[in-house]
This record gives sequence, structure tokens and C-alpha cells, in this order.
Amino acid sequence: MSECAAYAKLQERFRRRSLIGDALGILDWDQATTMPEGSAAGRAEQIATLSVMRHELMVAPGVADAISQAIVDLDAADVCADDWRRGNLREMRRIHMLADALPGDLVEAAARANSACELKWRSARAENDFPSLLPSLREVVNLVRQSAYARAEALGLMPYDALLEEYESGTRTVRLDPLFDRLATYLPDIIPRVLERQNARPSPIRPVGPFVIADQRTLAVELMRALGFDFDHGRLDVSHHPFCGGATGDVRITTRYNEDDFTESLMGVMHETGHALYERGLPEEWQFQPVGAALGMAIHESQSLLVEMQISRSRSFLAFALPRMKAAFADAGPAWDVDNLYRLYTHVAPGFIRVDADEVTYPLHIVLRYRLEKALLSNDLDLADLPGAWNDGMNELLGITPPDERQGCLQDIHWPAGLFGYFPTYTLGAMAAAQFFRAARIAMPDLDKDIAAGRLAPLLSWLRINVHGQASRHSAEELIVRATGEELNPDIFLDHLESRYLLDN
Amino acid sequence: MSECAAYAKLQERFRRRSLIGDALGILDWDQATTMPEGSAAGRAEQIATLSVMRHELMVAPGVADAISQAIVDLDAADVCADDWRRGNLREMRRIHMLADALPGDLVEAAARANSACELKWRSARAENDFPSLLPSLREVVNLVRQSAYARAEALGLMPYDALLEEYESGTRTVRLDPLFDRLATYLPDIIPRVLERQNARPSPIRPVGPFVIADQRTLAVELMRALGFDFDHGRLDVSHHPFCGGATGDVRITTRYNEDDFTESLMGVMHETGHALYERGLPEEWQFQPVGAALGMAIHESQSLLVEMQISRSRSFLAFALPRMKAAFADAGPAWDVDNLYRLYTHVAPGFIRVDADEVTYPLHIVLRYRLEKALLSNDLDLADLPGAWNDGMNELLGITPPDERQGCLQDIHWPAGLFGYFPTYTLGAMAAAQFFRAARIAMPDLDKDIAAGRLAPLLSWLRINVHGQASRHSAEELIVRATGEELNPDIFLDHLESRYLLDN
Repeated sequence: MSECAAYAKLQERFRRRSLIGDALGILDWDQATTMPEGSAAGRAEQIATLSVMRHELMVAPGVADAISQAIVDLDAADVCADDWRRGNLREMRRIHMLADALPGDLVEAAARANSACELKWRSARAENDFPSLLPSLREVVNLVRQSAYARAEALGLMPYDALLEEYESGTRTVRLDPLFDRLATYLPDIIPRVLERQNARPSPIRPVGPFVIADQRTLAVELMRALGFDFDHGRLDVSHHPFCGGATGDVRITTRYNEDDFTESLMGVMHETGHALYERGLPEEWQFQPVGAALGMAIHESQSLLVEMQISRSRSFLAFALPRMKAAFADAGPAWDVDNLYRLYTHVAPGFIRVDADEVTYPLHIVLRYRLEKALLSNDLDLADLPGAWNDGMNELLGITPPDERQGCLQDIHWPAGLFGYFPTYTLGAMAAAQFFRAARIAMPDLDKDIAAGRLAPLLSWLRINVHGQASRHSAEELIVRATGEELNPDIFLDHLESRYLLDN
Repeated sequence: MSECAAYAKLQERFRRRSLIGDALGILDWDQATTMPEGSAAGRAEQIATLSVMRHELMVAPGVADAISQAIVDLDAADVCADDWRRGNLREMRRIHMLADALPGDLVEAAARANSACELKWRSARAENDFPSLLPSLREVVNLVRQSAYARAEALGLMPYDALLEEYESGTRTVRLDPLFDRLATYLPDIIPRVLERQNARPSPIRPVGPFVIADQRTLAVELMRALGFDFDHGRLDVSHHPFCGGATGDVRITTRYNEDDFTESLMGVMHETGHALYERGLPEEWQFQPVGAALGMAIHESQSLLVEMQISRSRSFLAFALPRMKAAFADAGPAWDVDNLYRLYTHVAPGFIRVDADEVTYPLHIVLRYRLEKALLSNDLDLADLPGAWNDGMNELLGITPPDERQGCLQDIHWPAGLFGYFPTYTLGAMAAAQFFRAARIAMPDLDKDIAAGRLAPLLSWLRINVHGQASRHSAEELIVRATGEELNPDIFLDHLESRYLLDN
């Protein structure tokens, strides 16, 4: 296979890149769960050093040529021409171009501005003081804009699309605009009907705590195991913000317990378990190669939302979980009833805070942010006018106006952290989750019965074959078509909402 | 300071090296305390990748020239010529030469042979089967010998000295031989007298457990705090083999609890706390530079043994600790008495196992290993004859013969792991500990009273100034002279043994 010498060398380079990423994953996990507080400065230096070394691997002289050569070799030599290798080269090229498009001093300036702005944001949010954030957020947006334009030029994309490309490759404004416009029309239309129907039913009753944390953990572990979480290659720990992290073959999720409400943590654990199953289901043969990694944030979010929204909040799953909840906790009163829990876990209430939103109103939070960040990027909206534009948008989409900026445009860390183009992946993920789940249901007519009986292996197996095990072999678009028979189709998500929130008895 | 451009670039390179080392420290710690078992293969890959990258930083073209240039610059430019910078260059040169002296394929072959032999050793020890280890240990020794000769040539040293150089720079056989011969003569002479005197006294009574692990931990943390352990920059966790690890400014020690005997863990914690205080006391101004790192293993061990042997097993410290032990545990019977605990924690008993040995017999275990590994390296001893030579040596030095090889030459992991030249540092450390402690006592006449009252701040302060804060500014030899007024003097250690084991009432 001497025709593939360039490719073999690239594999070595990207393997190293992936393993540095794994080391960073463990350092990040440790920082969030374990690290003594005083060690933060040293940890920042370790992370910066490994990040720079990883970046250097990508922008080293010769990488671009090697990729071009490997593509030529691949076309010439049939022996190398399977779609895994093609996918690997496609991902290598994308990763390389994203890295190479940005001059080093811009990357450094952005990293510094983002850190500084994140810090500012913590106090600005606490003090409900948008003006104090303005100068530093302006700097962040300015550098995001420079990065977007630099990458747009290198990749031949529109600037906002160049931002999307980092989080979910292939996502384009031209597709998102009609999708999100549709949600912006449809959801405000059905929400009043959902609420009306909800109000005609008994109010859900909350289980009464306190719920001992050790018992919450035991229950969480039991349900994680039922879903197929592999504790021989993973962990459940505690952190302030829940996440799924760790390394290849070492998938670690976290949660935060509330003694008064076990649901909060439990549904979070289910969500992160969905991310973890994806990571753990990636194909071993392609470990440490770009094609063996998970696709972008939208597909990742589809796996967490599939487990959280489609499975864990379903009546079937709650029927399976209820006896386990009862066994885990002392008697918690009349709440221990499947119908009640179902009403509780599918309760809809328009609110100000995205992370607390139900699945019906959530997409409108995303539409708002999507529109605003596009406007900020294109300079159609001046940053000073953000609070007003935010409140107008909330009013238009959800019919409510935040009483202050803490509950408005200061609520999320994303923009201060320089994350523009990330928000849409949440809603793309919700749509893909509904679509994958429907396809799984069609493939397995007994799926709901299986779930009610705690038999989750068939579903996991379907996901392993159709999603997890495919890793980055195909683009996200193609993955969806192969797994579900059609392109991402918002109707399936809207059907799910209708059937759960307007038709279900 | 343009004269120091070469030096400035070296600083950047070595800073990166140090931060990779810190990341490796966290990965190692995680592996020993936290990592799910199934993740071992991935972790090995991460560690190998970072280790290779760190090695590449050292053997990159131009490093040797830059060091030579920086030394010339330093001599020419007074502005750079303080002894910290000189020390930094000395350490850079040493680290570079040690790395550069070994061809890459030898490093790789040795790493592979050591891993394989370690695995073999686990089963060979369990099954008491030396012959099954022989082929793989032969390969290890063969590669150690190649490394020793390669480094000896590059550094202008004798082969065994080239091995010592890695663990404690400046240590030479020509000094160790008479030192260890002296121990080999002196200790077998006093041990019978120590035992005779010990037998004439009441046998120490063991506190009766069970000792709840949470209570053991609480006591350990209390005593760690008393000694000055900084929990804002460190942790105490559990691992199979206790160690002190972590990263710069994030010093993590581990222990292993035994419900039947709290002493085992507690004295281990005190030992690791000594290592941790050293790491935490390194000067912040020189963080991430070679001169800011701890000296070799002998000085490191001096700090752990100073805390464990000199302080924690002293009557003064036990007087301070006893009420805390009583408070931590339910009544444990007649053992709760300072004199009894002192007899217990200074009990001498020649035995087969090094890690269980008391401080009087311990050096003889080291002398044995020192003589044997020199003989193996020089081919004066064939590996097949090791068990017999071991037993003869034990008999000569300690008057006992191991009943099997598990309690003989199979007990330690060091040789299977390729660690030759490491053992002497344990005893050099014990000697230095006695010498540092005597100097501290002379400087602080109230030291014993302070210790009995739990006032350990003055001692810590003395160590910070005279040892920890000096980092690698001077060689180990010079550090000892500066801190204690004389070269390493074995008489001080022997005086300590005499006064504790033959004269103390």
C-alpha cells in the first residue's frame, strides 16, 4: 500500500491529536469534579499547553499537502477506497482547514477575550448589569466576527455558516432559516392549545422529599445500567454543571443532586447517559481517528434528547422506573403514580430560562438566539441594543417579557464564552431525536412494550448499528437518511409534540 | 537581555515539558485512584503519547546548541548570572543529556520490555515462580545495561553511575560503596543489642479495632493539616499502592486503609505528607522550570522520612497525636498510652519484606539490592543465580533466609519495571532526613516541645527556607551542606538510630 504512505502518516498525526484530546478530556473532567480549588491556575496552564500542541499538529507545514496527496492516492488506489477511509480524509481535511484558517494570534486573542468575558459575565449576571459586560462582550463579538470571516474565506462559506461548521458540519443558514421560521410560526400557535388541554387535567403532584443523595445515586445508577451505560468504561460523578466528558473508552458523566427534587438530577443523568451511550458505541476499529469520532453537536444532542425526551419522559419508561423510584425512596405520597409522573415530566410552561424549558417551548428560546446572533454577526444589531431586542423577541415568540436581564440576555454563558453558532444544534438535535426514535419504533414494533419492561437492549442495538457505530463515516445529513429513510424532517418532531401534548390521553 | 535569547527560548521549551509532566501526573493519579478498569488500554495510549511528545521536546534538533549558547551568554552577561538561572541551565543540560543519550528505539524497546516484565512479575510473584520470570527479566536487564552504557558514554560516567544519575544526580558508586559497607558492618552489629534491649521491655500492645475507615480518614486529615498540608492545593485519596503525585500546585497523596490496623495507613499518610510538603513548598517564581522542581529521589525521600521517621514516630509527636487518636476511635483498650505507642511505632524486627521493615533493618535491604544490581549490571552475577545470591545476602546481612522467592527476590516491582539505581535513594534519603532534622533541632531548641504541642509551623518554615524553597538551585550535595553545615554524614543517621534504639528510655 505504498500509494497510501501520505495517508498512513496522517493517521499517525491525527491519532496523536485524538489522544491529546483524550488527555484534555480527563483534565477537564478532573477540574469540574475533583481538582482542589487552588489548583485552577496550574490546570489552565496544562490545558493551554496541550491545546496549543494539538493545534500545532494541525497547522504544521506539509499537512495540507499530505491531505491533498492522500486524496489523490485514495482515488487512484482501490485498495484504500472504502468509505471509512474516505470519511477519515474528509474529517481530516475539515479539522485541518478549520484550524488552519485562523492565524495563531487571532486564536490566542480570542481565547484571552473569551476567558476575560466569561469572568465578567459571572458578576454581570449576578448583579443583573448588562452595561458592565458590554465592552468585554464587544471584544468577544469582534473577534468571533474576525474568525467567522477568516474561516468563511478559507472554506468558501457565508460567515455565519463558517461558525456553524465548527459545531455541526454541513449546517447552513439557508436550511436553518425556513426550519426555524416554521417553528416560530407553528409553536406559538399550538402552545395555547397545549396549555388549555393541560389546564383541563389534574395538576401534577410533586413527590415529597427529602431524597437522600446516596439513594438518588443508587436509582440513577440502576437506570443508567438499564439503558446500557458501561460502568467498566465510565463513571457517574458530581459537578456544578452536568456534562458528559472523559476520554475514548472512558466516558464520564456528571450530575448535581437536589435533596428536595430528585427529578432534576435524574432527568439530567438520563440526558448525559444518552451522550455517553453514543461515545461508548463508537467503533473500536476507528478509535483515535477523526472518522471514528462522534459527529457534530446536533447528532450528539439527538442522542441525549432521544434518551431524555423520547424515552425517559415517556409513559412506558415511567412505568418501568416507578417501582424503582418507590424502592429507592421512602414513601413520597400520592405522586407515585405513572399518569401523575407523566404529567409532571411533560409539563409545559413558557418561561424565561432556556435550561429550565420544556420541549415544546425550548425551540423558541433557540430561534430567538439564532436570530440575534446572526444579527450581531452581520452588524444589523448593535450589541448595546441586545437587551431590548431580546425582550422583544421573547415577547413575540413566547408572549412573555423578562423582568430583568439576568432572566434575559445574561442567562447563558455561550456568547461570553465566544460560542456563536452553537445554539441551533440543540434544536436540530431535538428534531433528529424524534426522527431516530420514530425510525426505531417502526423497525421494532414492540419498542414501547420493551421499554415498559425495562428491555432497552434492542433499542441500544438499533442505535449502535444505525447511529453510534457509524461514527463520522458519513455526513450528518447522510447518516440521518440512512438511519431513517429521509432527510431531517421537522414534521416528525412536530408530530411528536402534537401526539404527546395534544393527542395523548 | 538579547544576550539571553537562547535561554529565553529554552525556558519556553522546558516550561512546556514541565506542563506535559503535570498533565501526566494527573493522568497517573486518576489511573491509580479513579479510572474505570476497562479504560486501562486507552490510558496507556494517552500516557505513551504525552511521554513521546515530552521526549521529542528534549531531543529536538538545536536543543544542545541552544544550551551551549545559553551557557556562553550567561557567562558573558552579568544580568543573567544568578545561581537560579545557572541552576536552571545545569538542570536543562542534565535532562537534555539523559534524554539525548538514548536512541529512540532503545527507549521504546525498554518501555515495552518493562511493561511486559511487570505483567509477568505479577503472576510470577503470586505463584512464587522465579524461572517463569527469568526470560523477560533477562530482556529488561539487557536493555537496562544498554541504556547504562549509552548514557555512561554520553555523560562520561561509569555505567552504574549513569543509572544513579537519573534518580539522584551526582550520586556515585565511589561514594556509595564505603557508605553502604559501613552500614553492612555497623547494623548487623547493633541489631542484636537493639533486640535484646527491646525484649527486656514490655511488648507493645496493638490498639484493638475495627477502625472505621471514615474515622481513620478524619484523623489522617487532621494530622496532615497539623503538619501543614495545603488542602486548597492538594487531596487525600485511596489507591492500592500509596504515592504522592498530581501536578504543580496540585499535590495529591493516597493511602490504603486497613480496618484492623489504623497505624499502617496513618504512618503511610505521614510519609506521603512529607513528599507533598516538599512539592508544595517549591518556589512559585520558578514554577514549570527545571530549577524549580524537586531535587532527586534521595532528597525527596529525605522529606518523607523526616516526617514519618523523625517526626511521626517520635515520642513528642505521639504525645500530640494520642488525644486525637482517642477522639477519632472508640476506646481501643490499654494501647492508648504514649510509651506503648512509641514502642509500637519503633518496634524492630528483622524480616524478609523491605516495605514492612523498620528503620534499623531497612538499610540492609537496600545494601543487598545495591550489591546485587551492581553485580547484575556488570555481569558478575548471572540472573539465573539471583535467588541464591539474594538468600545468601539476606543471611549475611540480616541473619535470616527467605522461605520462598515471593519473600525473596520476587518481592519488589523495581527490577521488573526496569528501575535499577533507584534503591540506594531510599537509604540516602533516610540519612539526609536524620541530618536535616538534627540541623533543624539545633536551629530550634524548642522543636521537640513544639512538636508535642502540635506547633509544626516553625519546622515547616525551616524546611521551606532550607530545603523546599531551594528546589534545584543547588546540587543535592550543596543543598545538604548549606542546610546542615556539612556533607552527607552517615554518623548522624547512626547516632539517630543509637539514640532512639539503644539509649532512649
